[in-house]
Amino acid sequence: MRDVAVVGVGMTEFGEMWSQSLRTIWAEAALAALADAGVKKVDLITIGSMSPGLFVGQEHLASLLADELGMAGTAASRVESACASGGLALRTGFAEVASGLSDTVLVTGVEKMNDVDGADATYALGTAADQEWEGFHGITFPGLYAMLARAHMERYGTTVEQLAAVSVKNHANGLLNPHAQYRMKLTVESALQSTMVADPLRLMDCSPVTDGAAALVLTTVEHAKELSGDRPIVKITGSGLATDTITLANRDDLTELKAVRKAADRAYAMAGRKAEDLDVVEVHDCFTIAEIMATEAIGLFEPGKGAKAAEDGLTAIGGKIPVNTSGGLKSKGHPVGATGVAQVAEITTQLRGEAGERQVAGAKVGLAQNMGGSGG
Amino acid sequence: MRDVAVVGVGMTEFGEMWSQSLRTIWAEAALAALADAGVKKVDLITIGSMSPGLFVGQEHLASLLADELGMAGTAASRVESACASGGLALRTGFAEVASGLSDTVLVTGVEKMNDVDGADATYALGTAADQEWEGFHGITFPGLYAMLARAHMERYGTTVEQLAAVSVKNHANGLLNPHAQYRMKLTVESALQSTMVADPLRLMDCSPVTDGAAALVLTTVEHAKELSGDRPIVKITGSGLATDTITLANRDDLTELKAVRKAADRAYAMAGRKAEDLDVVEVHDCFTIAEIMATEAIGLFEPGKGAKAAEDGLTAIGGKIPVNTSGGLKSKGHPVGATGVAQVAEITTQLRGEAGERQVAGAKVGLAQNMGGSGG
Repeated sequence: MRDVAVVGVGMTEFGEMWSQSLRTIWAEAALAALADAGVKKVDLITIGSMSPGLFVGQEHLASLLADELGMAGTAASRVESACASGGLALRTGFAEVASGLSDTVLVTGVEKMNDVDGADATYALGTAADQEWEGFHGITFPGLYAMLARAHMERYGTTVEQLAAVSVKNHANGLLNPHAQYRMKLTVESALQSTMVADPLRLMDCSPVTDGAAALVLTTVEHAKELSGDRPIVKITGSGLATDTITLANRDDLTELKAVRKAADRAYAMAGRKAEDLDVVEVHDCFTIAEIMATEAIGLFEPGKGAKAAEDGLTAIGGKIPVNTSGGLKSKGHPVGATGVAQVAEITTQLRGEAGERQVAGAKVGLAQNMGGSGG
Repeated sequence: MRDVAVVGVGMTEFGEMWSQSLRTIWAEAALAALADAGVKKVDLITIGSMSPGLFVGQEHLASLLADELGMAGTAASRVESACASGGLALRTGFAEVASGLSDTVLVTGVEKMNDVDGADATYALGTAADQEWEGFHGITFPGLYAMLARAHMERYGTTVEQLAAVSVKNHANGLLNPHAQYRMKLTVESALQSTMVADPLRLMDCSPVTDGAAALVLTTVEHAKELSGDRPIVKITGSGLATDTITLANRDDLTELKAVRKAADRAYAMAGRKAEDLDVVEVHDCFTIAEIMATEAIGLFEPGKGAKAAEDGLTAIGGKIPVNTSGGLKSKGHPVGATGVAQVAEITTQLRGEAGERQVAGAKVGLAQNMGGSGG
């Protein structure tokens, strides 16, 4: 297996982009990543996107977007795993470079969620749940995550103030990220006064609906050395992918994200690393409870200790292990197909020492965790 | 790069399956492939599916289907490239085994198109065209392929009788395939009396709307030797992936499928083979003109000679180079995400010498060509 490095990152600003279309935001991120890498040609473009069919009435992004970039002819593929589509785009590009099938790959993610065509965004997102056993009975994602939150509170005594602490921390980080959608200072008090969405989750526990795109350029470590000049080489040392039952009803235990634990274990094993080696982490905080459960599943904290850790500031910048320095999905925004790619853009930026005001001093090893549905 | 082999194939019957759902037909094909391979565990499941979101209101197939198979936990991914989604699922699994990231991969494709949820099947399929520049103006795929047919007729003198000859040949082959949707004898005369869909394409020039699933098991050639007993090892020696402009309006030449030519050239280069080495071929005959243009693009015939070749019987079983021995999309059916996988299932069956009445004697080298949209 060949060694693979990230040599370019690019992102649009995340937010409501009423005057742009899926293809224009995607191209902006792609061109930024290519320019950052100093690369003009790639062997493959991978695209993570959850549901362009339901959001904007357009499938077949591989051909559409290669063409939009002026690269018709270039091999391209789209991958989908609900909100983990971006992570899967990275995995797919990684396998191509590692195998030698491709030398340089443009890994991208995109979602245009605001100007939804036909159905509404909540319906489109809901197709990430089991439609026959969950969706058709009326439940949507805030309700599913509310059940996870309730189970965690019941078993471990997790409090709504601790959930709010995650949101407050991520908004504080997002204030330092020029790409973030909601750059605002938040307090625990105001978070707890926000609209109830699905008890115990309030509006300030939920990530927003977002338009955005993100991109990375991958190549061999050998080629990266030629391209990178004085910049550090950011090598991908481990990758893990796993599933869990899609329905909550089929899980033995609602307080643990088993797919995340398995994926992390696989990535650690491949990299020869453990959670203690990490300097900076991005996790999938589609809801505040998801961040808490993810930090436990990837081994940063014991099961049941993640909420207290967040409340105590251990996951803040300057804390024991900074989590979601980008602002996370909560503040940076959550264009679902782009999220996994944007997480790795943040980790790469941190490991290059280019994160400005939100830089984690001396960060050498990072991890990004992206997941779909309610942890499926 | 590690050598990769196909060690298992499985398919449902293709057709209208009103009493089954996407997950049940998928599981039937997956279990058949695992049983055929003698494998109980895989490292990864790849799933090609074009638009389960628009067809049945369900995204996130990776988690849904791993779970359905009783394999929750196993890594899984879905890929989409319109009607080339199945081919892309194979490419993705191939890269995983070739790189060493996975040892054994279940490659699958599925589409449930008849009991469409919400929009109609023509709309869902139409999202494979450029919605802003083609779809929103009202054109659908029969119209797009009719334009390709008109251009080919204009330049090369291709006739409607030659188009019909493709359909007649594929229905003759489909009569020999127990999985085919439309097992019926067709004559040129009756094909030319079928309903006009988009001039010059009649109903008998068009592939049908189909429910179906197909699956393959990939592993290393080394492991394949342990599994295969007396059966021939079917090695994947080349793989090519390419794009073209998604809109017909942006193409210099409507008589050539450039993406197919590029993909074929890449696959031939990787395999160290040329068109003359092929014994059996499956091409993407979503419309009869598509088969003619594909046989030219992969180099079986000179540009403009494909139609005459079909009429002269060169592509029939027993002809110079048998094309679509399975019955092709026209007779076997075209569950869009499953098609690319089903094509490779046919080639594998032929190379194993297990194709029964439709066996091409002594077939040693095969090729499958799968494409999305109007050749994007």
